[in-house]
Order: sequence, then structure tokens, then C-alpha cells
Amino acid sequence: MKKLLIIGGVAGGASAAARARRLNEEVEIIMFERGEYISFANCGLPYHIGGDIASRDALVLQTPQSFKARFNVDVRLFNEVVAIDKDAKTVTVKNLQSGEQYVESYDALVLSPGAAPVTPPIPGLQTPRTFSLRNLPDMDRIIASIKDNQPKHATVVGGGFIGLEMVEALRELGIAVTLLELSPQVMAPVDLEMANMVHQEIVDHGVDLRLNTGLAAVEQVEAGLQLSLNNGDSLNTELLISAIGVKPETKLAVDAGLAIGALGGIAVDDRMRTSDPAIYAVGDAIEEVDLITGEKALIPLAGPANRQGRIAANNIFGADEAYSKTQGTAICRVFSLAVASTGMNEKRLSRAGMAFEKIYVHPASHASYFPGAHPVSLKLLFNPVDGKILGAQAVGRDGIDKRIDVLAVAIRAGMTVFDLQQMELTYAPPFGSAKDVLNQAGFVAGNLINGEIRICHSDELEAPSADQVLLDVRNPGELAKLGTIGEAINIPVDQLRDRLDELPKDKEILIFCQVGLRGNVAYRMLANHGFRAKNLTGGFKTYQAVKAAF
Amino acid sequence: MKKLLIIGGVAGGASAAARARRLNEEVEIIMFERGEYISFANCGLPYHIGGDIASRDALVLQTPQSFKARFNVDVRLFNEVVAIDKDAKTVTVKNLQSGEQYVESYDALVLSPGAAPVTPPIPGLQTPRTFSLRNLPDMDRIIASIKDNQPKHATVVGGGFIGLEMVEALRELGIAVTLLELSPQVMAPVDLEMANMVHQEIVDHGVDLRLNTGLAAVEQVEAGLQLSLNNGDSLNTELLISAIGVKPETKLAVDAGLAIGALGGIAVDDRMRTSDPAIYAVGDAIEEVDLITGEKALIPLAGPANRQGRIAANNIFGADEAYSKTQGTAICRVFSLAVASTGMNEKRLSRAGMAFEKIYVHPASHASYFPGAHPVSLKLLFNPVDGKILGAQAVGRDGIDKRIDVLAVAIRAGMTVFDLQQMELTYAPPFGSAKDVLNQAGFVAGNLINGEIRICHSDELEAPSADQVLLDVRNPGELAKLGTIGEAINIPVDQLRDRLDELPKDKEILIFCQVGLRGNVAYRMLANHGFRAKNLTGGFKTYQAVKAAF
Repeated sequence: MKKLLIIGGVAGGASAAARARRLNEEVEIIMFERGEYISFANCGLPYHIGGDIASRDALVLQTPQSFKARFNVDVRLFNEVVAIDKDAKTVTVKNLQSGEQYVESYDALVLSPGAAPVTPPIPGLQTPRTFSLRNLPDMDRIIASIKDNQPKHATVVGGGFIGLEMVEALRELGIAVTLLELSPQVMAPVDLEMANMVHQEIVDHGVDLRLNTGLAAVEQVEAGLQLSLNNGDSLNTELLISAIGVKPETKLAVDAGLAIGALGGIAVDDRMRTSDPAIYAVGDAIEEVDLITGEKALIPLAGPANRQGRIAANNIFGADEAYSKTQGTAICRVFSLAVASTGMNEKRLSRAGMAFEKIYVHPASHASYFPGAHPVSLKLLFNPVDGKILGAQAVGRDGIDKRIDVLAVAIRAGMTVFDLQQMELTYAPPFGSAKDVLNQAGFVAGNLINGEIRICHSDELEAPSADQVLLDVRNPGELAKLGTIGEAINIPVDQLRDRLDELPKDKEILIFCQVGLRGNVAYRMLANHGFRAKNLTGGFKTYQAVKAAF
Repeated sequence: MKKLLIIGGVAGGASAAARARRLNEEVEIIMFERGEYISFANCGLPYHIGGDIASRDALVLQTPQSFKARFNVDVRLFNEVVAIDKDAKTVTVKNLQSGEQYVESYDALVLSPGAAPVTPPIPGLQTPRTFSLRNLPDMDRIIASIKDNQPKHATVVGGGFIGLEMVEALRELGIAVTLLELSPQVMAPVDLEMANMVHQEIVDHGVDLRLNTGLAAVEQVEAGLQLSLNNGDSLNTELLISAIGVKPETKLAVDAGLAIGALGGIAVDDRMRTSDPAIYAVGDAIEEVDLITGEKALIPLAGPANRQGRIAANNIFGADEAYSKTQGTAICRVFSLAVASTGMNEKRLSRAGMAFEKIYVHPASHASYFPGAHPVSLKLLFNPVDGKILGAQAVGRDGIDKRIDVLAVAIRAGMTVFDLQQMELTYAPPFGSAKDVLNQAGFVAGNLINGEIRICHSDELEAPSADQVLLDVRNPGELAKLGTIGEAINIPVDQLRDRLDELPKDKEILIFCQVGLRGNVAYRMLANHGFRAKNLTGGFKTYQAVKAAF
């Protein structure tokens, strides 16, 4: 191993280069970057636009000079690799400043080209004042446009991570924002009812949220841009951010004859090796293996990219290290909410035809009597027979990252909902509860598997059969304030034991309370008295999230 | 099962009662509480004194009326069980208000008497203005004393959870505080160097911290109290809080002839059953089994007490459920720091003669370019051969609970440091880093086990042998500001590759930087160039924590 070439100088590429040098002082390492920057904080770009990150310099993590000094890597900015000859083990490089082309040989090659914003064939999407956001120059252009044009209204297309972060950034600048999302929900990794809590937060922050709505055409007009939407509406705006998604940058790999996977990413084995034994690939451009389904997946996230860069370098220098399968853990801040998920969601479980059950809880993020506690709305998906945890989603203002991190590790360890019951987590009033959110979720799910409780979901309460009655066990004050469901009988849980004769023994009683806790007490009481019943998991709060329309 | 008696109405007892009722409507449940309150937030008491929790009512979680209404439990306040006749299956109860005694029979009995503050035989400890803090009346007395006497100075004896929380509460009230701790450190669950970071925080908040110092005598004087210390000093103060620790309340159990463990707690099996098959015991009064050593342990924490109450009830009503072993996960807020731990600490590993290695890292709690990031100082203890995680401790201002929670679950799952490397945790700039603290800790520990790096600890740098030289790879500006160690050669890491000839090849080079990261780069460079070297794990920051004297 005399010469290692790396294509792409951001997360995965930079990690591979640094790791390679730590493993070997002698190897010549050249890192080609067609852009102006290596190792910049691409996840920070929206936050600099919005002002959370005041200094642009903070986003530049490494320079060619710093990388040379520390890792003796020859970083070549504005140098684009335009071809790979895998038989000759050479690459052809174009110097984008001089226009000259040259050839470099390699013993090993790491591809870290990343993913490019999806640019759908929409007329006018190259109009001035329309942008995507992938790198520092993109960010600079958006900031300049805002400064020059002082837009009063902006439109973001796409409700994924970058789209949501841009919505927040633009609102922080006082700009009115329309968010267009072609699907029924933002944040595809979570299910609709969890996304609905995010929709509420977005609307509460004055955003004009338009779900099931796509962009059809963009036209430049005097006042800025006129957008034609796929529902026939038109919309005047002054700034357009396209954040529809990203797709793997595979042109080099395709041209070189490397294998491409079914999802369109570069195919690699678990050593990060492509179909050519001297060529490795890492980061957003590759296909990974899903931890739970074993199927291929595209996971354009920074954490995996960094770890893959490290592992590619390890394997190039003689280690035999496998990259673990991916579970797609992710989080996004949306104004004061965090929304996060790990593992499978219900949509994917249904598509895959996998058996699952789901429960919801909404406990406080820490002791409710201590200031700053907020509900953690948690959806837990698990195998209905053995309780193995399949996925989790959480939304709330505090402690969301913590719960999903713990569940991510629990999934990786193959834990069940019964393991959640016994988890021994940090507890002091500012940080948690004696019965943590995760313990509680474990109790509910475990009770369900053990047959100690039967649950129902919101759809069942919408249309009860003639054999069913609804029982709302909240207090009358809550009903007056929040409403109830259908023709529910209202008996507060603390009066229920004395009013059992008001309930029919020949019907199934669908119980609900606000979050599911009192409903559980009521369920057990009714079951012990010989009633047939079910409790609405997650209570009225989940019902509202399921039924919300945006 | 017709009649269930429960002794003690706080965490474990209340949980057992509520769970029992959910399992069975018919059983008669009587809960005896000798005090004035059941189910109060005892972990919140210091925070009400300090003012974080404004409302006293917030601390009363359940009343006899609410417990009766919801769970049909006959709660008897001011009723103390004074004897158990396990052969007759009866208890003798004294009504503390009327003085009358009566007998109740039981089919099953749950003991949840808790733990009482240790009151050492110090003369004068019953003097007015001296307090311990276990329940609401204790709290009320302390608040009344502060209001009546307006103390300018208070003394806290004992640097455990309650002691530290009281120090903070008193400082928040503007009262000068002396903290006396007989051992060399506060927060016994962590090791000295981690506690030293807490000591610094305490001192920075104006507290007169006196370690290795015990209280010998208390005397009432005109101005308040005069304390005699075990080092011959005396100290005038106006309020004394004794928080030396707690011991299991076992008198009833002892008198009844139930088995008591070697540590002085009530002996139970993993079903929470005492030596008498009809009597269960839960909470602070019992001995549990340590997850890692398999030895008995006393764990007076609220989370385990709650779960044990639930499990005792389950087993009483026919389930066969085991309580998991305990790992002693704990956290404490100390001013703006959090200090937390899980699993074994170094002191216990050493005492147990178990092989271990330790590493330290100090990465940012989230992306360092995003506002609000603070270092997470993490100590990881693991098996030096297979990398199995044995324990962890963390100190910092942000994200401490999250990292220890994840590690608590990793320990319970039997994970190794290599599993930490591949953990897929939530990442967005406000919440984490692409390489999280735990990934980084895994890399360092894994590199050590793989032989890719050799490390040293602070003591070795204090007294290098004639065969060793010290190399400080930080920048001269850092040395000028922070100091260095001994006669260290200073070559900044980014100049090292060009200045290797300044280093001796015949000596072992002990490298250090600020937190260990640049030292790792330098180590790899030197090792690849044929030098013998070691890197100081945790760097100068850990060195300072180890060497700090308070």
C-alpha cells in the first residue's frame, strides 16, 4: 500500500484520510475535493442561515492546511475526479480552476462522493432565487439572496430534515414561510400520527403548511417567483428552497463499471468494499443493510458516513472489520420540538408484512413536580409474541434524544419490552422519573403481551360496533375543555368502582382517558369485575394526533 | 388471598398497593404509614427548600383519599406497625394519635419501611437547629428554622446525594455553606478524580468544602451552634443538616425473626420474598444483588423501590417474576453540573480484585459549533481482554444523563467497547455529534484492546523513570495559559512530523495533550516511526482532575 486516493473531502472521506494516516505514516494520501471546502459542518448550514450559529467560520472544521499539518494529506480543492480506470488503477482528475486534466495512480481508492439534492424536472427550478442547500457556497448564496432581496415570503419544498430546518431558520429571520410537501406528512421516518404533532408545531409557528401538495412550475415574475402547484393553485413567493431529498452520487462509479445496488446506491460489502477489490465506498453514496429487515437501505446520515470512513481505512490497512447494519436512528429539531426515531416505523413494518403491535405513552420528561418537565410522546413498535423491540418514535420538548438513544441501543442488543421494564436509568428530579418513560412503555407493552390488558386504537373508537360502548374515564372538566369521542359514557376513574352498574355487561367497553394511564386502571377494574373491555393506548392525546387534519 | 397488608406508604409500598389492586379487585388492602403522608416526592424535598419547586403541594403525589378512590386501599396514617407475628400471620398496630393498639391479620404482608438517616453518636446532634431530611415534616422544620432564624451560615454534614442537594439549596437561598465530608470525596459512587470536578464546582459556588473532616460535637451557643470538628477545628454555624447516609429500617423484621443480610438489609430472594413465604420486602430496607459482581448491595434509590413494589405484588398474585439484579445507576445535580454513574467504579473493581482498564474522554455534548455544547467528561471502565463494559462515570453541564443511560443499558446487555464504536445514536447539531461521546469512548478503548495504542495514567507522568520523557503536543498558548507537566518537551502535534529528530529513540515517550485526541494522533505518528510511546488518556484535563487537591 503505497498510494491511497480519496474522492470527496467531507464526512466519510475526511474520516478515512485521517484514519489512514493514523494507521500508516508512509502511504501517500491524496484527497480530491471538487468544491472549495473539505470537512465542513454541512448539518450546521441551516442554523447559520437562521442565526443560531453566529460565525460562518465555525462551520469550517478543517482546511487543506490543517489537514496537511496534522495528517500529511495532500488535499486538492477544485479538483474533480472525472473518471476511474479500475483495471489500470488510475483516476483522471480535472483541475476546475485551470481546466487541466491529469492522471493519478492508486493502490487503494475510497469513494466518498456523497449525495446530491434531487432536482425534479420542474420548469423554472433553475430560476434565480431558487436554491438547494448542500454546501457552504449554497448557504452563502441563500444568505446573499435574503440580504439583497429582503424577502417577506419564502417557500420550502420538502418536509425532510433540511426542509424543516430551513423552515425554522426562515421563520427565525421573520420571513413568512410556505412549506410544500407532496406526501401526507413531514419527516418520513416517523408515522403520520407522530408527524401530526410536528405539523401542529409548524402551524403554531405561523407556517403555511401544505401537505399533499407538490410544486409543478416556477416562473420568474416582477415581485419574485410565481409557483404553480400540482393542485392548480398558484403562489407568489420571493425565495424558493428545494429540499426534496438527496440521491447517491454514482456517476463516477457507474462509469467505472462498479456494481450499483437496486436502490441506486453504490454496492459495498460489510467491509465497505465495492465490486472492485481495490475500491471502497462510504457515506451517502452507498447502500447499507437494514439491521431489522436485512434489506438494503439508503441512509444519508453523517454518523454512519464517519464510521464507514474509519472502517474502510482499517480494512485497507489490513484489519478485517465489518460495518454493522444500520437502524437509521435520526432526530430533527422543529422549533421547540424534537422528533426522533430508530428502527422500523409502522409504515415499513406493514409494507414488509411483519407482525407487530404498537403502544403509545406520554409521560413527563422528568419528575413532573420539577420545573421544565414536558410530555415525551413515545410510540413503541414490537413483536406481539416475544416482545422484541422493532422500532420507536418520540416527539416532545425535552428528553427526546435520550429516550431514542436508549431504545436504539436496546434494539441493537435485541432487547424486548420486558427488558425496558427493568431498565435502571439515571433518576433525580431534574433528569428523569423513578418510573422513567421507558419503564412505563415497557410496562404497558409487557402487560399487553402477557394478556393482562387488551388495547384498542383510535380507528376502533371512531366507529364502534353495536356490540361496543365508549367509556371516557376523565373528569368532566377535561371533557369540557378538550372534548370527547363520539357518544362516550363519562365516568371518572375514581368514581368507577361505585358506578359499575351503569355499564352494560353484554357489550365490549372501549375505555379511554387522556394518556392511557387512568384507562389502564379502569381496564383492570372492569376486567376483574367480569366486563369485556379494551383500553385506548395513548389515550385521547394519541387519538387527537391520529385524527388531526392538516 | 383475601387480605394484604403493606407497611410503609411511600415509593415501594404505594407501588405494591396500586399494583395489587390492578391485579385483584376483591382483596382487602390496608396500608399502614406511621407518618402524616403517603407517596410524597421525597427526592423533591431539597428542591422545595431551595426554591426550584415553588409549591409544597406539588410534593404530595397521593393522599389517603385519592388512593382510596382510585385503588380502594385503606390507608391508615399515623398507624405504626410495632410487631409482626409471622406464625399467626398478624401484625400489631399502634395508632400514634390515640395511643391504642390493635391487631390485623394478613394473608400476605409487604414490608416497605425504607431507610432511616444515619445518626452517629455525636454529642449535641439533637440540639435545636440540627436536622436531617427524610420526609415532609423534616422539610417543613428546616424551612421554618430558616425563616425564623435567618441563618447567614449553614453546615451540611455528608457529601452524598441529599447533602449535595442541600448545599445547592442553601446557596440558592443566599446562605453561606460549609460542607463537611469525612472521606476524601463527595459522591461516593464515582471515583476521586471525577469527584474532583464536582469539588471544583462546589468551591466555585462559594462553598467552604472541607474533605477528610468529620463532625465531633455540636454545642448550642448564643449565636447558634458551635461545631467541634475531628481535626480539632471549631466552626460557628446557625443551621446544621446531617446527611451522612441512610441505613435500612430493619427493627420490625429483626424482631419478627426474618433473615437479615450481611450488609444489614432485609434478605429477600429475587421474587422479593423474605425468609417467610408470606412476607415480602421492597425498597431501601432490603439487600439486592449487584449485576456485575453478583454480591449483595444496598441501593437506596427510588426507581428500584418502585419496580420492586410492582414485582412483589405480581408474585403475591400468582405471577413468577424475578427482579433483575441492580447496577446502581445514579445521578445528582450539583449547581450547573450533573454527575452520574452506572455499574462498577474503580474503587470497587480494585477492592474486588477484578481486572479492568480505564479511559477518559472529554468530547462536546453536541456539535461543538452549535451553541450550548459543553464537555462530557466520561470515564469508562472495561475488561481489558474482551472489552466488556464494567462501569462508567460522567460529569458535565449537558448530556450527562443521556450518556450514562445509554451505558446503563449497554452494561445490562453485556455489550463491549466495540459495540460502543458502532452505536447509532441520534444526531443533529442541537442534540449530538456525528461521532458521539460514546462512539469516541469506544474508539479509544477498542484501540487500546487491539494494541493500536498504549496509554498511561496521570501517576506515571508525575514521576517518569530515567527511561521516559514527557512530550506535550499542545500549542504554546495552551501551555502558557494552563501549565504543563514536569519537564515536558513541547512540540505541537501539527509540527511533530517535521521535528521527530528532537525526540530520543532510546526512551519511552509519554505523550499528552489537552483531552487525549491530539495525543492519539501523535502516538500513532511516533509508533509508526518506530518510537516507543504512550498517550495520557484524557489528557491534561484528566491529569488536572487527578491531581487537584481540595
